[in-house]
Amino acid sequence: MSERAYTYHVDGALVPADEATVSVRDRGFMYGDGAFETLRAYGGDVFEWDAHAARLRRTCETLSIDHGVPDREFRERIDATLAANDLADAYVKLSVTRGVQPGTLAPDPAVDPTVVVYVAALPRGGVAGEAAWDAPAVVRTAATRRAPAAALPPEAKTHSYLAGVLARLDGRRAAAAAGTDPPDEVLVRDVDGFLAEGSTSNVFWVRDGVLHTPGAGHPLLPGVTRSVVLDLARDAGVPVETGSYGVDDVRRADEAFLTNTTWELRPIASVDGDAVGGGPVTDRLAGRFDALVERRHY
Amino acid sequence: MSERAYTYHVDGALVPADEATVSVRDRGFMYGDGAFETLRAYGGDVFEWDAHAARLRRTCETLSIDHGVPDREFRERIDATLAANDLADAYVKLSVTRGVQPGTLAPDPAVDPTVVVYVAALPRGGVAGEAAWDAPAVVRTAATRRAPAAALPPEAKTHSYLAGVLARLDGRRAAAAAGTDPPDEVLVRDVDGFLAEGSTSNVFWVRDGVLHTPGAGHPLLPGVTRSVVLDLARDAGVPVETGSYGVDDVRRADEAFLTNTTWELRPIASVDGDAVGGGPVTDRLAGRFDALVERRHY
Repeated sequence: MSERAYTYHVDGALVPADEATVSVRDRGFMYGDGAFETLRAYGGDVFEWDAHAARLRRTCETLSIDHGVPDREFRERIDATLAANDLADAYVKLSVTRGVQPGTLAPDPAVDPTVVVYVAALPRGGVAGEAAWDAPAVVRTAATRRAPAAALPPEAKTHSYLAGVLARLDGRRAAAAAGTDPPDEVLVRDVDGFLAEGSTSNVFWVRDGVLHTPGAGHPLLPGVTRSVVLDLARDAGVPVETGSYGVDDVRRADEAFLTNTTWELRPIASVDGDAVGGGPVTDRLAGRFDALVERRHY
Repeated sequence: MSERAYTYHVDGALVPADEATVSVRDRGFMYGDGAFETLRAYGGDVFEWDAHAARLRRTCETLSIDHGVPDREFRERIDATLAANDLADAYVKLSVTRGVQPGTLAPDPAVDPTVVVYVAALPRGGVAGEAAWDAPAVVRTAATRRAPAAALPPEAKTHSYLAGVLARLDGRRAAAAAGTDPPDEVLVRDVDGFLAEGSTSNVFWVRDGVLHTPGAGHPLLPGVTRSVVLDLARDAGVPVETGSYGVDDVRRADEAFLTNTTWELRPIASVDGDAVGGGPVTDRLAGRFDALVERRHY
């Protein structure tokens, strides 16, 4: 992310990023008690807005954050922030927290939410675009496991994101032990040892022409890009299998890639030092993704 | 907590609580990537400072937040905040986050921490004091489970506290279904159904003269007050048993109480509507706790 001086949108006002603050009593700060979405704008327009808005609604429902802000108001704030920064191709993050409330941990049903829009420049996407990443992802397996659904609803995207931080720290530690740079991403398993997802991505791989990804029965955040890629695979006649897998399935795959809103499709260079790489199916799906973005946004 | 205009301490400076802010890019806000301690000052002096400072150190180690701030510096900031508010008997919260860093989720080893001290008046403790709570705690069982240690280190006290918020929401929902007010606390079980702790407290009960509390083999945050109470029980010749229990063990107990820094020992009035109450052992231990505070602080 560049070091340009951006303007953010905080609680209804545009403010320089360096002066964009929240109260230390904001529950998003004190308890990770908030929802967020990572979005991407192509040609000035947010990609898959409806899917992101729907997930934000679901996260706020899971957290009982009855914020009363209509989706179109969020969208208008994002659009205003993009315009204020003169950005057409951008990374966008939208946060909605339970705000400041009296008392301590027990949430009050009356919510005056804190709403923050962050932006940063990203390369143009689509057929004529370049990737937001430099190279295929070097990946390591995290020791930290994904919490079961009974403990933390996996489909909720919240400010309590420490498990992802701990998983990244695992990756840094494993890389240091192997004498290499920190990985670009880590693979996270559930407590039963099944592969769930990356710390900020979903994981796909190809074996004998079949596209695989962990099923939503495992504790994972089913990403918007994951869903788009599954649709593109079906359209392209690529057989898809979802289910229960281990990290070794990725390690031994013919090709593998990660998906998230920022990376789109990013090939996996290696898992714990074992080379994997992209391939024809990855390229084909990435090409279809680019075409979709081109068609919709440019 | 009163509505008095307090002064907090943020990043080395005393500031009015209403103007105390952190950057929206603070990792404590974005990812719950920070440590905290809840403390209590009696007669101007923090209770069990060494135990809290040690736990803060352990939490920061678990999170690899290499903040470089000596314990005595934290203590000085707390003391300065108490003095600025002319507070001798107070609630104190100390937060240390990974601060603002470049990039997104992956933490950078170079940390410029955000340090916040919050304070609020609390009644005088000790023999001549009054409780920080109004009445014995009405308690309900939460549906949300405590994450296993493999997913989230239970002994780390972090800003990713959403599980506690969700558990409190469960309690509110259960109370609404029963037509009663929200409970004062919820009991949280691990994914195997064993009782772990309250959302902000540890739980104790007495059966046939024996004091019980879940063992640290279960995912729970072993509180400073829990440890003090276990010591007081041993000194008083009260037999103690720690192990694996269910919510029914509390429900059927002769007496039960919760512990945390703010509440000290708080009897449990009822569990899911079934009356329990304090009793002679609870009273005896609470009396010894008051005497300890009186001896040390007044």
